[in-house]
Amino acid sequence: MPTQRDGTPVSVLARQLRILDTFDAGTVFLSLSEIAERSGLPMTTTHRLVAELVEERMLERLPDRSYQLGLRLWELAARTPRAMGLREIAAPMVQFVQGQVRQHTQLGVEGGYDVVYLDRASAPNAVVNATIVGGRISLGASAIGHVLLSDKPRAFLAKIVEAGIRRYTDKTPQTLDELVDVVDRVRELGYSVADGFIHPAARGMAAPIYGPDGRVLAGLGMVVPSGEPVNMRIVELLRSAARRVSQQMRAAYIDPDHPHALPGAKFRVLINSSKSSMEYFEGNEGG
Amino acid sequence: MPTQRDGTPVSVLARQLRILDTFDAGTVFLSLSEIAERSGLPMTTTHRLVAELVEERMLERLPDRSYQLGLRLWELAARTPRAMGLREIAAPMVQFVQGQVRQHTQLGVEGGYDVVYLDRASAPNAVVNATIVGGRISLGASAIGHVLLSDKPRAFLAKIVEAGIRRYTDKTPQTLDELVDVVDRVRELGYSVADGFIHPAARGMAAPIYGPDGRVLAGLGMVVPSGEPVNMRIVELLRSAARRVSQQMRAAYIDPDHPHALPGAKFRVLINSSKSSMEYFEGNEGG
Repeated sequence: MPTQRDGTPVSVLARQLRILDTFDAGTVFLSLSEIAERSGLPMTTTHRLVAELVEERMLERLPDRSYQLGLRLWELAARTPRAMGLREIAAPMVQFVQGQVRQHTQLGVEGGYDVVYLDRASAPNAVVNATIVGGRISLGASAIGHVLLSDKPRAFLAKIVEAGIRRYTDKTPQTLDELVDVVDRVRELGYSVADGFIHPAARGMAAPIYGPDGRVLAGLGMVVPSGEPVNMRIVELLRSAARRVSQQMRAAYIDPDHPHALPGAKFRVLINSSKSSMEYFEGNEGG
Repeated sequence: MPTQRDGTPVSVLARQLRILDTFDAGTVFLSLSEIAERSGLPMTTTHRLVAELVEERMLERLPDRSYQLGLRLWELAARTPRAMGLREIAAPMVQFVQGQVRQHTQLGVEGGYDVVYLDRASAPNAVVNATIVGGRISLGASAIGHVLLSDKPRAFLAKIVEAGIRRYTDKTPQTLDELVDVVDRVRELGYSVADGFIHPAARGMAAPIYGPDGRVLAGLGMVVPSGEPVNMRIVELLRSAARRVSQQMRAAYIDPDHPHALPGAKFRVLINSSKSSMEYFEGNEGG
């Protein structure tokens, strides 16, 4: 990102995003002075940018004068095909798998060199898990990450290692050889097992979800206690749930020549609604 | 929004958002010229703004040179407490209710004069339903809307009517008297029934979800076929599911004096994870 000499981003958009980025999963409410402090922007600039963001409903001002991220972000995000369509389709399977195993079940996609987690279902007594919905963990450290890496070339794995994989435990892969070994095993088995890579007590497991183009689109994973032998019933449950999500993703895509194909046309308007709702929307276009 | 004489918004943020708003649930992939046409911005301006949005990962360029909304919007949205926290907590109940009744189950909150729908689960043969996740329907027309209006003053109802309620059918409330009648019935019964207000074949039903402050925070609703007598088993299912979500929302909030309270401190970092994951995060703050 181009910046001025004092580190302030040049583009207005980048400065607005720096304001939004002061909010994180641990800090959902901030005062104006906290936003200024965390963003490193001068108070007058912060004041002006925050006012614009409130005007556009990207930020919301609460009665106690603190701010929170606005519902408009969510409305925009709901139209992000890479995240929301997949998440909608996978949600029943995430809940189902979690209900069977009563540990953590999660869904993740690739975002740069990290897994971005789109969903998670957990039980109160489940094992320790470092995942936050909307959060990131290096592709090299995570079981879902290893599934996502399984259709990438070696050069991409080398870039991940070069960028540096956070060393959560002694077992977290650090070198290219270590990462290649892990990813080769995923290619061979069709699923991943990451024992103690992020926390000594936890084992990540994941299976691939394929997009309509046959590429790995996402990973469906579980976090279970480490140490015990790998439970093949869980492996089969994960793999069959991931296959079912892949089938539904394929069913959601339609031929660009179909009369109801969207402009640009890669999938249906409503990907998990009922037939009669789809007909309703198709009859009310622009309505 | 302040605009120039030709209708172009003055603020850079507003222009960027106009670009993002050219994407909707029916149009998830757009070319540069389609974005320019839909936004009404000159091609050179569009080109520059799109490049900035791609640079900041708010837009993503696809191999066929079309664009889609970027994953970063989703990452920001995942931190929106009003939408995502509630959605996470309610997700198992949305799936459970849908599994019991096999029609549409949905979750909505107030966004201005509309319901904004945060989640929906459906069955392939379910009745017609006009809801899109991330979409809006006037508070006055929707069963979830009537639940949200049930703790609002009459003056707010008058504003909804003044703003105009889209007339989906002959039954959609249009006058203040009609709307007051509908909302009074919700106050009396503790749930809403909207028969044919949006489509003649569909009945909306909803129950209130309360926030920790005791105010109505959201509505949990179903869409079922209209015409038959109201099924009290469904009413009780909805009400008990909504009560359970209210309890969990309350449990997610902690006292601002609690040692693990967040700065500003209204709820926990991880609202639906396991105890050991919460301890892990609390031990790794800033990590």
